[in-house]
Amino acid sequence: MGTGKVYLVGAGPGAPDLLTVRAVKVLSRAEIVFHDALINKEVLTYCPVECTLVPVGTRCGLSTPRRQDTIHRLLAEAVQQHSTVVRLKGGDPCVFGRGGEDVEFLTAHRIPWEVIPGISAGIGGLSLLGLPVTHRGLSSAVTLLTGSRESAETFEGFPAEAIRSTAHTLVFYMSFRYVADIAQHLIQHGRSPDTYALCASWLSYPQQKIVTAPLAHINAAVLDAQLETPALLVVGDVVHFWQQLHEGHMDLEGV
Amino acid sequence: MGTGKVYLVGAGPGAPDLLTVRAVKVLSRAEIVFHDALINKEVLTYCPVECTLVPVGTRCGLSTPRRQDTIHRLLAEAVQQHSTVVRLKGGDPCVFGRGGEDVEFLTAHRIPWEVIPGISAGIGGLSLLGLPVTHRGLSSAVTLLTGSRESAETFEGFPAEAIRSTAHTLVFYMSFRYVADIAQHLIQHGRSPDTYALCASWLSYPQQKIVTAPLAHINAAVLDAQLETPALLVVGDVVHFWQQLHEGHMDLEGV
Repeated sequence: MGTGKVYLVGAGPGAPDLLTVRAVKVLSRAEIVFHDALINKEVLTYCPVECTLVPVGTRCGLSTPRRQDTIHRLLAEAVQQHSTVVRLKGGDPCVFGRGGEDVEFLTAHRIPWEVIPGISAGIGGLSLLGLPVTHRGLSSAVTLLTGSRESAETFEGFPAEAIRSTAHTLVFYMSFRYVADIAQHLIQHGRSPDTYALCASWLSYPQQKIVTAPLAHINAAVLDAQLETPALLVVGDVVHFWQQLHEGHMDLEGV
Repeated sequence: MGTGKVYLVGAGPGAPDLLTVRAVKVLSRAEIVFHDALINKEVLTYCPVECTLVPVGTRCGLSTPRRQDTIHRLLAEAVQQHSTVVRLKGGDPCVFGRGGEDVEFLTAHRIPWEVIPGISAGIGGLSLLGLPVTHRGLSSAVTLLTGSRESAETFEGFPAEAIRSTAHTLVFYMSFRYVADIAQHLIQHGRSPDTYALCASWLSYPQQKIVTAPLAHINAAVLDAQLETPALLVVGDVVHFWQQLHEGHMDLEGV
């Protein structure tokens, strides 16, 4: 057995100054970093020049169990030779990031690990915009889900009756390809087509784009604005609140 | 009008190295900081020695609309005299942090603002433990709610039928006083009393304490372990997963 440790590190939504101080400290002494393909390259400049950088994983929606196995094998090999091994993931490692699978593998193989959290796009990424996922009188709770090819899969464990009866904010991660499906599913199951929705792509990057529209029109608006993946979708009354606020704030900042 | 700006900054769960690099940069040039009473004092050492530190807000559950008004008035006055005014809040300013009310006030009063997100305890604080709020086969979504005196208020917008039909992870913020009420409400509305629950107090602090038990016994376990506020409650199958993992990990780390 080596004496190394694997750090699962959250890189946040993209901007390099949105990593935590703890994450930067670990990166600055990393010997090898296995990073998502989608990580902002500027984040990798926190690593020492002699650090080995290995791109792994893929863009949202393309990963397979076999790819996870490969990454796990690479981590297990690396920790035999290095004391500081980093698995760097976008957002937070444990929010739709397969962090649970990683710690399960590492524990089973008696490899020491530590998780360093990151700013998750669907929470902190929206705070950056000034969009509160909870707001008094509008939304007392928020649910984070993930988009997927099958809307049945997206809404697994969150069935029709919950959609109909739940007034709070819904945030769909990795939802770019499924905006039309998700909107249709929500409306079919009792959400008002007038509920506001927001689609945000490349949050915190210079190329960040935001689109808002009523649920019935959000897909057309996303297409019109030529939004790109990665993107997330927010549904709820807080979006309407934010839109009015944003108009005032843009005026204020002279944007 | 002054030329200042108000920064709403998230301080994360407690440990000072869990702030973002951006948050630390702003604190290091702050002239005046209005901070929650519960903020870890070590976080305040990021501020320059000449910075004015003003404790505001209160421990969870005690804040009133009038207190918010007072803080808003203080921010509006400070921004006339200072260029960098910080409102420092635990966790993330926009997750049960009244950040929406703050940006609404500031925008209406034509005061420039910026939100700097923080690690929210109910997401990133759990990642620190290696507890994934979503995990393949166990939970495909997570809902963040807040504890309150009235369980009707806690579950506003998330009624009985949603509780019964929703299999995913539930995270209750500021729930220390309401563990018994929440557990009873969930069981009454169709959650199995055997569902695992976890209560975490002082996450990321040296005095961090974690307790797990089936929903039917979680309140007794919390009392037995003499947990303290601040604390959050997690309900769902991921807790059972984490408990087994944790036993293996503790053995591994020799804790």
